[in-house]
Amino acid sequence: MMEPPFLLFLADVQNALSAKPAIGLLHWRRENCIAQIRMPDCRVSTGLPDADYAEAVRRGAKTFVIGVTNAGGQLKTEWYPYILSAIDCGLDIANGMRDRLRDVTEIVAAANRTGVDLLDLRHADIPIPMASCRRRQGRRLLTVGTDCSCGKKFTALTISRDMKARGLDCTFRATGQTGIMISGAGLALDTIVGDCIAGGAELLSPDNKHDHWDVIEGQGSILHPAHAGVPLSLLHGSQPDAFVVCHEPTRRHMRGITHPVPPVAAVRDATERMGRLTNPNIRCVGISLNTSEFQGDIFQLKQQLHREHEVPVVDPVIEGTGDILNYMCSIGLLTG
Amino acid sequence: MMEPPFLLFLADVQNALSAKPAIGLLHWRRENCIAQIRMPDCRVSTGLPDADYAEAVRRGAKTFVIGVTNAGGQLKTEWYPYILSAIDCGLDIANGMRDRLRDVTEIVAAANRTGVDLLDLRHADIPIPMASCRRRQGRRLLTVGTDCSCGKKFTALTISRDMKARGLDCTFRATGQTGIMISGAGLALDTIVGDCIAGGAELLSPDNKHDHWDVIEGQGSILHPAHAGVPLSLLHGSQPDAFVVCHEPTRRHMRGITHPVPPVAAVRDATERMGRLTNPNIRCVGISLNTSEFQGDIFQLKQQLHREHEVPVVDPVIEGTGDILNYMCSIGLLTG
Repeated sequence: MMEPPFLLFLADVQNALSAKPAIGLLHWRRENCIAQIRMPDCRVSTGLPDADYAEAVRRGAKTFVIGVTNAGGQLKTEWYPYILSAIDCGLDIANGMRDRLRDVTEIVAAANRTGVDLLDLRHADIPIPMASCRRRQGRRLLTVGTDCSCGKKFTALTISRDMKARGLDCTFRATGQTGIMISGAGLALDTIVGDCIAGGAELLSPDNKHDHWDVIEGQGSILHPAHAGVPLSLLHGSQPDAFVVCHEPTRRHMRGITHPVPPVAAVRDATERMGRLTNPNIRCVGISLNTSEFQGDIFQLKQQLHREHEVPVVDPVIEGTGDILNYMCSIGLLTG
Repeated sequence: MMEPPFLLFLADVQNALSAKPAIGLLHWRRENCIAQIRMPDCRVSTGLPDADYAEAVRRGAKTFVIGVTNAGGQLKTEWYPYILSAIDCGLDIANGMRDRLRDVTEIVAAANRTGVDLLDLRHADIPIPMASCRRRQGRRLLTVGTDCSCGKKFTALTISRDMKARGLDCTFRATGQTGIMISGAGLALDTIVGDCIAGGAELLSPDNKHDHWDVIEGQGSILHPAHAGVPLSLLHGSQPDAFVVCHEPTRRHMRGITHPVPPVAAVRDATERMGRLTNPNIRCVGISLNTSEFQGDIFQLKQQLHREHEVPVVDPVIEGTGDILNYMCSIGLLTG
């Protein structure tokens, strides 16, 4: 996978959401990120120093990471000169877009010339079977959401970090490009045909030891009308024992459409109802709030959700997910 | 699309279910099917005469239809000689498998030589957008199922036929290879990435006149744990006003897995709950039974389901779907 240290390419992005992969990498692997490269019209900064290629290589950079995302997953031709310069300096290229580096003739030719690796992380390039729907050994927790981009990956990574800190045996399982960059493994579900997504989820969290936990990054929302099939198949294939509902309380509409964001209770209810099909014991173990944009009284919001749902309500950025793990201990899902 | 008359290739299939496309074509377009070609170990017959290529061409055949299906959607190399012989005789080739004729060098070379068309019907080869989730004009009916292969296509085709017989303006919308072969248009949802299936369903049933009905072929089952994401996205993208639950009452397990077939009520309930997201007025207008294997008292079974659901219960093979249309009139969904 991606060899550190990383040089983060922010391209021409205009807002932080479009730089999710770079910002995620910086948060979770700060020690591996040494500099950023931005195009003249880029409006985002990670806070890392801007470096040129030669300087980054002198400072040890091994991989040029395309740290941005866009709706179509397109590699823009305007980026090619930057990618080619990085290749010329001997850097591997890590790409999480839907478009493949391997499909661009001049990039492949340059990589062959300098002997660097082209990593198209969004494409597993392994056959994805149909789901067997067989019960697997080991424990699983899935993060689900009231919308896209509301904290599912962050919450799963935090739970995984907090479980490890308690000496528990667990693995974060990435289902999208940023999670794959951060954890170095995973399966991007958005490049798989609909029929095989549950099968992909089965591949991602195979049989394991009885007390091992897979902490699986959720995708989208089971109540997002443009994409609900993906999270439903991920739910079925993951057969989770536990799930956490992630919610961004200030958002009025689901991303890209005019439908209102559903309440936490509706997502919890749909997840429990539909999840029972592959795990009759599925249960909600917490609510994770993304309060980065929230101007009101966070304590009051948390209390209200706690009264309604009777599970811990946390902001993982502020306080971590210890309360969720304590709750899982109290109901016998976790020991220690 | 496929130019008739058709020569149906049954390959080496061992059971009727694997010859679904040929049998479907024969049922719905009998006047266009003139003969069949079978490999020596084939155990299925459509009842059409076995013909050789020259004879079929003399009788006017224009298209050699690969009339079989298999789990992986694979074009088996053992079939190539048959396909090549058909091409040599000047027949177009219609293929509903996931594998493409266009990817087989020797088949492409032969087709170029004789100037015939290679039709890879399962691949739309048009960009499928993400769903907009906008409400569209016109009416829509979707068939849904308690399992795969339980009568969803047959029911939709019958409703479409019966609506037309009453002078109603309607279009059958195919979502799988056999439906596409029968109707000459459609979109095979099982080759689309999960994120875009709702978008594909929107493309398939665009804005239309107020009183026009799209009768949409359902796929799989919203309660089939290996594939539920596809029917859920089809439901959301189709935003149906009405749905019919299709059920095969003798089946114990869902196809390919050990999960029991869910009751009609569970599928109806999940379809209503999830379908309201894109059409708050969605309602069940009938139950369609596939009684081909049923040994018991059909009348009693129908009465019991009718008492429970208070909608018409029909076997479309035996009696058509007139009762469903009458019911739609009685609740104001149809006029005339």
